[in-house]
Amino acid sequence: MKRIDWNALDEQGRSEALARPVQSRASELREGVSRIITEVRVRGDAALRELSAKYDRCALAALEVADDEFTAAEASLDPALKTAIREAAGRIETFHRAAALQPVGVDTAPGVRVECVLRPIQRVGLYVPAGSAPLPSTALMLGVPARIAGCREVVLCSPARADGRCDAAVLYAARLTGVHKVFKLGGAQAIAAMAYGTASVPKCDKLFGPGNAWVTEAKLQVSSEPDGAAIDMPAGPSEVLVIADVAANPAFVAADLLSQAEHGPDSQVILLSDSAALLDRVEHEVERQCAELPRAEIARQALAQSRLIAVASLAQAVEVSNRYAPEHLILQVTVPRRLLEGIACAGSVFLGAWTPESVGDYCSGSNHVLPTYGHARSYSGVSVASYQKQITVQELSADGLRGIGPCAATLAAAEQLEAHRRAVTLRLAELESMI
Amino acid sequence: MKRIDWNALDEQGRSEALARPVQSRASELREGVSRIITEVRVRGDAALRELSAKYDRCALAALEVADDEFTAAEASLDPALKTAIREAAGRIETFHRAAALQPVGVDTAPGVRVECVLRPIQRVGLYVPAGSAPLPSTALMLGVPARIAGCREVVLCSPARADGRCDAAVLYAARLTGVHKVFKLGGAQAIAAMAYGTASVPKCDKLFGPGNAWVTEAKLQVSSEPDGAAIDMPAGPSEVLVIADVAANPAFVAADLLSQAEHGPDSQVILLSDSAALLDRVEHEVERQCAELPRAEIARQALAQSRLIAVASLAQAVEVSNRYAPEHLILQVTVPRRLLEGIACAGSVFLGAWTPESVGDYCSGSNHVLPTYGHARSYSGVSVASYQKQITVQELSADGLRGIGPCAATLAAAEQLEAHRRAVTLRLAELESMI
Repeated sequence: MKRIDWNALDEQGRSEALARPVQSRASELREGVSRIITEVRVRGDAALRELSAKYDRCALAALEVADDEFTAAEASLDPALKTAIREAAGRIETFHRAAALQPVGVDTAPGVRVECVLRPIQRVGLYVPAGSAPLPSTALMLGVPARIAGCREVVLCSPARADGRCDAAVLYAARLTGVHKVFKLGGAQAIAAMAYGTASVPKCDKLFGPGNAWVTEAKLQVSSEPDGAAIDMPAGPSEVLVIADVAANPAFVAADLLSQAEHGPDSQVILLSDSAALLDRVEHEVERQCAELPRAEIARQALAQSRLIAVASLAQAVEVSNRYAPEHLILQVTVPRRLLEGIACAGSVFLGAWTPESVGDYCSGSNHVLPTYGHARSYSGVSVASYQKQITVQELSADGLRGIGPCAATLAAAEQLEAHRRAVTLRLAELESMI
Repeated sequence: MKRIDWNALDEQGRSEALARPVQSRASELREGVSRIITEVRVRGDAALRELSAKYDRCALAALEVADDEFTAAEASLDPALKTAIREAAGRIETFHRAAALQPVGVDTAPGVRVECVLRPIQRVGLYVPAGSAPLPSTALMLGVPARIAGCREVVLCSPARADGRCDAAVLYAARLTGVHKVFKLGGAQAIAAMAYGTASVPKCDKLFGPGNAWVTEAKLQVSSEPDGAAIDMPAGPSEVLVIADVAANPAFVAADLLSQAEHGPDSQVILLSDSAALLDRVEHEVERQCAELPRAEIARQALAQSRLIAVASLAQAVEVSNRYAPEHLILQVTVPRRLLEGIACAGSVFLGAWTPESVGDYCSGSNHVLPTYGHARSYSGVSVASYQKQITVQELSADGLRGIGPCAATLAAAEQLEAHRRAVTLRLAELESMI
């Protein structure tokens, strides 16, 4: 990890210190993904079979996971893992239900009722990657809020292994959360299938979930087309920023940094501290713990583009963190709530020594599908609201229209929209005539 | 308007009956917009001046509206219009405050606190078109929720007239809602300036507002780039769907249809009714009222691609409406709340005879920036939440980690993420050693 003194840097140096690994939308990637989408739109299931054979190296008979495959998956799983999945699902449900929106209504004037009602997005598509390892936790994070929202059709795609099966834990988690259909599809072709529909795969209104560069590019492309599908957010490689003071346990801080670094070579981890001694100790601990990891090689690549940054104060650490806008922010300081108020941009925040980021990844109840790559400046993580529409409703009584109609008519006239004006004045005249 | 009997149509006929006017992202449009964005990124303010001269036919000295221009604008306005703008802003504020999210917190297990806190998006960019007429109401719809959310910097762009000035009512509305900076910029160049920043225009995190095909394409392009800006939603031409029963007042229904039709030649209006007599009467009324409109020519073009559709029942009308997913949905039926429950997709709903769509456009308090073109299947209209991030926060006590740590460790092991597991088990071991 590169050691940096924030206050020794000029503006450009600071920008470089917080630069993320470049995510290019290279024209090769764009065109490759565009070709796959066209293939799937034109040739449907046949294209999906060919692309799965090519990219996932598996020959699929049925694209959809059959009932007996779910049963076999459940039977094959370690009971302790099933218990952990159910336990995690329960807490995810508790938090997501508590944080869900409620319908509201207010009279904005006498006889003018304005409400906001909630409706589920009808058909949603969830993507669960299975690159370096299967991710049953992602199936929970996407499936639980979809069920709470009440989406009518929940579709999940996850790539099959070479033996033509999906990971058993992913299937168990999908079924547990009430996903209606699971397809053995991965990559850009899975996204294309859910966005446009094929004979097997239902066309979905909105797509959710993380993925590699191909999946992300496919999500961007389908979300730009009027007949495509909406998406949860643009995704990028995972990242964590830790703010630690001199009292922090360096072994804990190092472990948290490494738990992000092991995600992939393009992950980034940043430590900010007002204590040079703490930075020294963490640097040493990262070296020591990294050597013991099975994914040490991946972690080392991520660490190569990571930073240990000395700041003048915890207040400055908050400023720097807001500028970076991390996906995960860990506050390993003596009174973390004192810093929370100043946090303007982050996906999810972890307070204190006993809150490793791993608990948010799995089972504290918060969602782990979060904005990365600076998108925490403008996006929120996945929630029940991501699966709903807020529809406004208004109802005026005759008196309500008498009260606010003239205001609408004046504004319509100013905007030279005469038909808008008449839709009001015609009714006001009718009310006059009724007296 | 084309007269259609829904139950005489096969599946393809039904799709055609609800087809919207094609919005192509023609390669000419894409490339033209892409060139403008590159120009603005590379040459900043100089490019903005040239593009304004070319497209808005005005020579701009300063790009930003100066204080004395706001003062002159306010002085020039009809007091009745100022009153109407203030009155509308007040009701928009009342509803948007009532519908705003609240922070929440819950213990998902003993010692496991999970919260959702709200933070404003720091810098937002609002776009107010001024094509056929100035739209002060749009400045209110975008500015009021930005102020309620507490965005630190609110920027607004609206094209100048040939005399180099922005519309006085737009300036008055912008200042009233607390917009910090207004720029005399329109089109794709305004979007590029707010997404990437120039010497004059601050770089914004998220962009809001309607616009023509160039503005919409520019918003799509900047939202696809990692260093661009998020956007509120993809926009399209305005539309309304009315469900009316035999008791509806045909003059009211016709007036509502025409108030959408006058928006532009690519607007679409649809009437569904279970009463052939009502369809006849409305058809006649549309003809009669349209002839009297100053924008009759525009309305007639929109009506050419609009539909009067006979359905078997109001229940079937709701089904058809959900399939279309209209931006505006008017229920001019005897008991409109009976249909509301079944409405699955719409931007905003208007109940009963005394609720013309115009009141929602201006001053009932709901927002008029709504998903069009079928996007109501997956998007919601603009609200305070559109200007905020929901950040999750978790804090575990030592006992909290003792309770849920093993669940996290089991899941991390199943996902072969050993560093994730150790970030938990290392802490659990520390807790053991402390006993």
